[in-house]
Amino acid sequence: MNGAIGERDLIRRISVILGGLENDDCAVIDAGERYLVASTDMLHQKTDFPDIMNPWQMGWMAVAVNLSDIAAMGAEPAGVLIAAGLPPEADQYFIDELFSGFGDCAALYGTRILGGDTDSHLELTITGTSLGFVEKELILRRRGARAGDLLCTTGSLGAAGGGLWAWQNGAKSELITSLLEPEPRLKEARALAKSGSVTAMMDNSDGLALSLSDLSEVSGVGFLVYQDKLPLAPGLVEMVGQENAIDMALSAGGDYELVFTLRSSGLEAARRACDLTVIGEVVEEGIWMERAGKRRQIERLGYEHRIGL
Amino acid sequence: MNGAIGERDLIRRISVILGGLENDDCAVIDAGERYLVASTDMLHQKTDFPDIMNPWQMGWMAVAVNLSDIAAMGAEPAGVLIAAGLPPEADQYFIDELFSGFGDCAALYGTRILGGDTDSHLELTITGTSLGFVEKELILRRRGARAGDLLCTTGSLGAAGGGLWAWQNGAKSELITSLLEPEPRLKEARALAKSGSVTAMMDNSDGLALSLSDLSEVSGVGFLVYQDKLPLAPGLVEMVGQENAIDMALSAGGDYELVFTLRSSGLEAARRACDLTVIGEVVEEGIWMERAGKRRQIERLGYEHRIGL
Repeated sequence: MNGAIGERDLIRRISVILGGLENDDCAVIDAGERYLVASTDMLHQKTDFPDIMNPWQMGWMAVAVNLSDIAAMGAEPAGVLIAAGLPPEADQYFIDELFSGFGDCAALYGTRILGGDTDSHLELTITGTSLGFVEKELILRRRGARAGDLLCTTGSLGAAGGGLWAWQNGAKSELITSLLEPEPRLKEARALAKSGSVTAMMDNSDGLALSLSDLSEVSGVGFLVYQDKLPLAPGLVEMVGQENAIDMALSAGGDYELVFTLRSSGLEAARRACDLTVIGEVVEEGIWMERAGKRRQIERLGYEHRIGL
Repeated sequence: MNGAIGERDLIRRISVILGGLENDDCAVIDAGERYLVASTDMLHQKTDFPDIMNPWQMGWMAVAVNLSDIAAMGAEPAGVLIAAGLPPEADQYFIDELFSGFGDCAALYGTRILGGDTDSHLELTITGTSLGFVEKELILRRRGARAGDLLCTTGSLGAAGGGLWAWQNGAKSELITSLLEPEPRLKEARALAKSGSVTAMMDNSDGLALSLSDLSEVSGVGFLVYQDKLPLAPGLVEMVGQENAIDMALSAGGDYELVFTLRSSGLEAARRACDLTVIGEVVEEGIWMERAGKRRQIERLGYEHRIGL
């Protein structure tokens, strides 16, 4: 292979070597009456931590992104493991703040840091692993969406992309905080799982377009997104204009909302579970966006690590 | 703080920030009828993979060291997650071999790679996270050793240290394979757990001296080691001499044997469980080695990452 390949293509290759991998936000293990779900994410300075991030925020983010994967399965968190490779320049203040960030994020979401590993490293590298449990009848997966279901999201879209833009362009914006301190949707996810209305779910951490592509592949369906229904992050359109705001909602990584499908009869129950926005519907095939009666295809663009091969 | 501090001191500091961490090879989580145990280890090119290692062996090692932590709790493995940060020079062959190493090691020990994360990284960095389950009445911890118990080990000691020496000195030795392809003692650990004779256990991955120090601290006891009973790795004394061989057994990292204590009435049952060597006894305090009636203190030396602060 020449040149870099995307993370998703690499994962397909690896899956063949390993005899098949499930395609969900977490691995799923039978734990008797419940499923154990587990997810691991490696973050490092250069790619994942914008220069403006303070060490507490780095710690927060490392835990938050892992808890978001637990949320996406409808699970309750049972703890987080942290492996931290600390660079030579990490001083006492840095380490104290970093580990306080880990602990504070875990505590806010009702869980804790169980342990881990520390190491010295050229570049700050943090691998968080989150564990959770979910009742077997409540687990939510990426597969299960059916044509006719409603497509929904929690919260707003494009906040992290807008935050990155604001920071890079020297603009003041509350979206910068959204970028630096993401909030995993654990409470919303549990309530949605208990509502019994959700047919498929994942988080949109790599952008809505890639999430729809992943859901589409696993569920064997397509999506139609109503452009005017996208809940763009507050202040985003005013800052970057309508077109860029839509692009950020679709393709910028760093939002940690839940993207999910509902059987249409379940909309009321889901609305009682949490605030949500219906942004489209599940169709037979293709991934489309519609505005004023016109449809265009949504390209499979989003945040992917490029890996040299 | 000035200068580097050792990993164990850093962990004490972190433990305070996080409100206390258990001091076992794995984190322990209540999973209903059983305990879930989980461990994470970050390995990277510079520190953990000798230059002679091939990519398959890197994969093998990343899984093996994590499974050794599952073994040390008396647990059955339930799966391994891998986060792999791949450097730009990693080509198709390298990646295929690396992931085959992950999968082959997991399969040999009756488990599998559940999933994970891939990323690009300046330096090859692999964080493995192993999960396991153990019946509540069978779990083995570092605490529990009592004065009068027997001190034992599986297998032989100093193999990895000898392998490193052989490689660095251009000597031919089968110990190089022990260094590069460690074998976690899962089968032995399960059988020992079921024997009901073990009072405390951990692996000796950082050398026997540090293991004894850790067990001593957690159990509130001391140890007396009989120097002549140490099962030095085959060929080690011939290669490096008696004194160096003892030093390697005590202080070189990279062995993955089980170090454990037995109630003395349980020796027969433990011997039926697996091959073991009684290397000493649990005493009230201090960590000592005895030879020909003379005792000397064992220094708390072993493999510790030094982390810049």
